[in-house]
Amino acid sequence: MLAVYLESGAVHLRRAAVPHRPQGFALLRLLLGGICNTDLELQRGYYGFSGVPGHEFVAEVMEADTAALIGQRVVGEINVACTRCEWCRRGLGRHCPGRTVLGIVNHPGAFEEFFTLPERNLHVVPEGVPLEHAVFAEPLAAACEILEQVSIPCSERVAVLGDGKLGLLIAQVLQAHGYKVHQFGRHPEKLRIAAAAGVATELSGDNLPTAEYNWVVDATGSPEGLRRAASMVRPRGTVILKSTVHGAVGIDTAPIIVNEITLVGSRCGRMEAALPLLSRNLIRLDEMIAGRFALDEAPKAFERAAAPGTLKVLLEAVR
Amino acid sequence: MLAVYLESGAVHLRRAAVPHRPQGFALLRLLLGGICNTDLELQRGYYGFSGVPGHEFVAEVMEADTAALIGQRVVGEINVACTRCEWCRRGLGRHCPGRTVLGIVNHPGAFEEFFTLPERNLHVVPEGVPLEHAVFAEPLAAACEILEQVSIPCSERVAVLGDGKLGLLIAQVLQAHGYKVHQFGRHPEKLRIAAAAGVATELSGDNLPTAEYNWVVDATGSPEGLRRAASMVRPRGTVILKSTVHGAVGIDTAPIIVNEITLVGSRCGRMEAALPLLSRNLIRLDEMIAGRFALDEAPKAFERAAAPGTLKVLLEAVR
Repeated sequence: MLAVYLESGAVHLRRAAVPHRPQGFALLRLLLGGICNTDLELQRGYYGFSGVPGHEFVAEVMEADTAALIGQRVVGEINVACTRCEWCRRGLGRHCPGRTVLGIVNHPGAFEEFFTLPERNLHVVPEGVPLEHAVFAEPLAAACEILEQVSIPCSERVAVLGDGKLGLLIAQVLQAHGYKVHQFGRHPEKLRIAAAAGVATELSGDNLPTAEYNWVVDATGSPEGLRRAASMVRPRGTVILKSTVHGAVGIDTAPIIVNEITLVGSRCGRMEAALPLLSRNLIRLDEMIAGRFALDEAPKAFERAAAPGTLKVLLEAVR
Repeated sequence: MLAVYLESGAVHLRRAAVPHRPQGFALLRLLLGGICNTDLELQRGYYGFSGVPGHEFVAEVMEADTAALIGQRVVGEINVACTRCEWCRRGLGRHCPGRTVLGIVNHPGAFEEFFTLPERNLHVVPEGVPLEHAVFAEPLAAACEILEQVSIPCSERVAVLGDGKLGLLIAQVLQAHGYKVHQFGRHPEKLRIAAAAGVATELSGDNLPTAEYNWVVDATGSPEGLRRAASMVRPRGTVILKSTVHGAVGIDTAPIIVNEITLVGSRCGRMEAALPLLSRNLIRLDEMIAGRFALDEAPKAFERAAAPGTLKVLLEAVR
């Protein structure tokens, strides 16, 4: 079978054996995958990664212990947890210290014709949800994670900094939950997507409001984001950190202490939260698709995804 | 009257006029003051401060609109708030954007024979509480502030990093509230004070436990503190930032996001929370007093307070 392989900064195509399906696992056939910024970072060598990337996918179940799963279209929780530790027992397998992570940590990813995941990680895609929407389930769950972690009071104004892929999903998820979202970004064509979903958008340079919001989400993906978010938040307010930035970020903690600001790191979320949003077609996703490539065009797809300002690039199974 | 004056890094004594008491304010006579690290930072020129420092005090009310206050021993909330803004209406005058702050921001401090504060800022010291304990009300309130901001479940283990003045108060306040406090410090003689209050103490070099606590308080006062606290906390755990550090601190935000850690800045607290702890004599304070100087020995007192490892230095009224 065909597999995408990252090594020393390059994207290769390889021929590989169809993976062995351990007990409790399903053998999945990739239907559609999405390239995430994390994949681009893995390519650049963060985490010393080499291997098959890919953790945003929708797939068909080819083999499974549970007969009813076979033939279903599924998305999947990317953390492969031990099921036995304290975290797993609390329903927080995504923090299981023994976890592997699909396409990120010690588990080959979804950008190959066939891959495996535990059956317990799989969620059947609701009827009527097209593949092109289902493939957003993982980043949409990451956007939903914010509301798992903090309780934002009814009708509050929330600022979202950044208009990239994750920023657009976050703004739309919060808007769909009744908050008054103000999104600040640098790309008119991206902000238009959020605006169509009812989000108040602002094309902002470096001119951002100061001490204005009780809730600010940093989804800029840049080291500047945290500093900007911290200056936009009001005393006793909360900044949610959705930007994974590598290396040390210099921040002045004095205003964080004086203004008693809370910073909340936020990562992966629950598929259970994301799927109903897809079923109800509450999130504008079609405009977020920037390109579609066959799996054997992965090097070109990665190049396209890495071009500044590109939204979601999809990889489809070779027929 | 005699006043302590900070200017260009030096501690002077000056003769000054007894201050005017505006309506609603009380004229206070200093009985006992405490030198805080913030005073030492003001001396070093942070915030471009010059003026009369001092915000930890117990005083006698000399003049006031409210006759019943006259002659009382009082401590005081240090933020002089507008009383009318949204923050003040929410009972959070300590975040009032128009506030001045006793001995810190645009309001002469307590290290002079007479000073003023609004009557509404004053709290009568409960009977039986000696001056030497009452003078700790302000930093004790800052320690209590943690429990105003976060809800720590019953009987949880809490790590406190740092065994300075504030660290010792925090450890004792949390211990007095039923938590299992583990305090990590570098000074056996200081840790002994917390140990006598029932705190589990550990003389730690750089060897600190990793991903071990759901709750970690950084009271080190050093830029290293935040990094250490972040590595001691478990996934989904909370770090409370009690160290005011000046300038940018370099932190790696990636583990904060991956482990979904919450950081909470924490500053001044409510006197109403601190005074009952003093009345009930729940906090060991006598051992925390490192020296006692008359107001006219302030330069020597500041020098002593600035010596490494010194606990609380008190300034008393000249009789």
